[in-house]
Order: sequence, then C-alpha cells, then structure tokens
Amino acid sequence: METASFYSENQKFYVAVDCIIFSYHENKLKVLLQKRNFDPFKGELSLMGGFVKDNESVKEAALRVLEERTGIKDVYIKQVGAFGDVERDPGARVISVAYTALVYRQLCNDELNKQNYGFWANVDEMPPLYFDHMEMVEKAHQQLKESIGNSPICFNMLPHLFTLGQLQSLYEAILGEPLDKRNFRKRVAEMSFIQKTDKIDKNTSKRGAALYKFNEDEYNNIKNFKL
Amino acid sequence: METASFYSENQKFYVAVDCIIFSYHENKLKVLLQKRNFDPFKGELSLMGGFVKDNESVKEAALRVLEERTGIKDVYIKQVGAFGDVERDPGARVISVAYTALVYRQLCNDELNKQNYGFWANVDEMPPLYFDHMEMVEKAHQQLKESIGNSPICFNMLPHLFTLGQLQSLYEAILGEPLDKRNFRKRVAEMSFIQKTDKIDKNTSKRGAALYKFNEDEYNNIKNFKL
Repeated sequence: METASFYSENQKFYVAVDCIIFSYHENKLKVLLQKRNFDPFKGELSLMGGFVKDNESVKEAALRVLEERTGIKDVYIKQVGAFGDVERDPGARVISVAYTALVYRQLCNDELNKQNYGFWANVDEMPPLYFDHMEMVEKAHQQLKESIGNSPICFNMLPHLFTLGQLQSLYEAILGEPLDKRNFRKRVAEMSFIQKTDKIDKNTSKRGAALYKFNEDEYNNIKNFKL
Repeated sequence: METASFYSENQKFYVAVDCIIFSYHENKLKVLLQKRNFDPFKGELSLMGGFVKDNESVKEAALRVLEERTGIKDVYIKQVGAFGDVERDPGARVISVAYTALVYRQLCNDELNKQNYGFWANVDEMPPLYFDHMEMVEKAHQQLKESIGNSPICFNMLPHLFTLGQLQSLYEAILGEPLDKRNFRKRVAEMSFIQKTDKIDKNTSKRGAALYKFNEDEYNNIKNFKL
C-alpha cells in the first residue's frame, strides 16, 4: 500500500476536548459549567470545551481551554477518556476527549468566567447538560472518588494552608458520605508530608484550628499516600 | 456564530484505535503484536489497530478491529485512553484511542492471525514497538493490575473450567510477583460465585486438581469481588 493512501483513504473527524473543572467551596464539590450564549445549542448548559487545533496535542488543547476559561496556567489535569459515539453531537460528528481538572476556586479569574457565561454548579445537584456531558461528569467524579484515597491530588483544590476540618470536609464532599473524624486524623498523622504549621485559623472556632500544609518535596521522597 | 461555521472553521483529524489484546498461555501474560507487512513502517512491530470510520463509534471500531484480527466477537474491552501528541505518528497527524481486550487464547483464530502477521509476545519481554505503542501497553498493563483485585475480568482469559492453580498463576503473571497460596485460596473461598465443580483436571498432578467455574449470574447478585 502506498504511504499516502494508507492515510488519505480514511475519514477525518473534528476532535474536541471537554473539561470537568472541579473546585471546592461553600463546603461543596462544584463543577464549572457554561450557559451557551451562541449557536448551536444556545441556552443549553455544557462543560467548558473547545476544538483541538493542528499545532497542539490533545492535552495541550485541554490546558489551553482551561487557561482561556479560568486564567489558571498550572492545573492538575487527568484524562477521563474519549467519547466517540456517532450521534453524540447532533450538529456534526465530533469525538471528544474529556479531562478532569482540579482547581483552587480563589485562583479562578471571575472576569473570564463572566465573559464565558460560566457558573459553578453543585455536583450533587446537577442541572441537565447537553450531549453526553453528564456522563463525562459522572465518570470524572467516579475516578476522583477512586483516586483521592491513594494520591495527594485534593490539595489542588485547597488553599496553601488548610485545617484538618477543611481537608475532611473536602473528602466528604467528594465521597458523598461522612467520615469518622478519629480515623481520618489518625491516617493524616501517619503521613509526615501533611505538616502542621505554627499558624492558627480563627474563622472556624473560638479556640482556632491549627493550619496544615502539604509538603510536596517530602511527599516525593516517600510516595506513600493513604487517606 | 453560525452553526455551520462553528464546526467548519476547525481542523479535522484521522482517528485510530489500537488494541492491547492480552491473553494468558504458557504461564505468561501475552499481548498480540503485528509485524507490519505493508508501508508505511513496513517491518516494524505494532499493536493491532485501524482507523475509525464515519458510521461507527470509536468503541465499535475497536470491536471491529478485534473481530477482524482474532475472529472473536464477544470480547471484554475497556478504554485505556486517547493518545494525542502532535508528532506521535510520523506519517500524518493521527489521534488514537487505545483499548484493552482480554481474550481466551484458544478462541483466537490462528488463520486470521497468520494473515495479519500477528504473534503473541510476552509482556515481560517486549520487543520495541513503533510510535507510542509501548506506552499504550504499559498503561493498559498498569490498569489491568489495578482492576483484577476488585473485578472479575480475568475469567475472560481462562477456559470455562479452570484450576485454582491456573487462576493464581494468571494473577501472578499479571502482577509480576508470587502470591501466597493460602491467602489466595482463602479469598477465593469467600466468593460463592467461584464454584467448585465435580470435574477433575488430571494434567497438572497425579492426584488431579478440582476444576472451578465462574458463575456470572451469582456474581451479578452479589457484586463483591476481592482477590
């Protein structure tokens, strides 16, 4: 077979990325949605997405979309998978690759958000989304549940300094169930890279709560996370 | 924005599927490779793959490739992920979606295999593969290791009736380490859907070993797998 025809006898497709941008605030796990202000599908709710371009990898496309919509450059992302049903987009055949992003709410640029008709929805009270975007959110949420126990990704959603109460609430928001405080703190104490600072958070109680930080260098030496 | 231009102003891409077809024989975890007998990249070793067509979903394309290359219709497949680096295929920009398939060696059609210059390679002694196919194999293998402990997917690689020795050897081949026989059998005994039959395998020892079967209906009632 000729090299040229090996490729050119095949069909080509639009390829998109869709980002499931999770954050944690108001004691809730949230996802960034967009109310489309343009055709096609004007008025419908969707994830933040865009088409892949010639000169970028699929992952680079996801990072570009994330920066365009949130202003954040250094984002934790992880591929959820490709969504490739023939009829998934009624406007044209589009194959989409979904990515989970975990962001700290305060780093998101609200002006960009406004420009893009973006808003944060509670993951446990999701409105209907277009196409297969709800399936993407569910798959991303499931993968998040499965990975927070053995990798320190949640710190991407917290401030640099946090209380153990905040950390536990975040885990509870993701898992959708309460956790035993004593067991949780025992496991935290076993990880030397979750470090108590000498700072106190006075917002949560009169006595105040100790503020902790995640020491990434220390974690990279140990690589043993279990929470 | 006009609906037509919303799509048409974007680039299109070739989309391929690549299958990591695992099987278990000769006490080894194997993967089906192809020595390419056609240009481009004639002589190179690759996974079994093909281009996605207009009229099929990405998953259907993977199932088609699997049937074309192995003759097997009912295959366990699971998406590994999309591989989308700009330069991954030096011949043209191709975005590939990789799928793990778990097959029982005896069901594979050797004639089809021969026609496709296919051969089984040991996963622990892999030859160099073209493009990013080695990365696909490694990611698929890693996912397989992580999932065999909590889902009954390995039975796709075994005969209908199997000994506990075979089952343990398969787990050891996938995990790449020996397992404690007593603990392994204790965990098997806790799962009522792994059922002893009254048949005996006389090949493995003089006394013979009891043959077991996986009862899928029973499993679907219980849905609690831990091995």
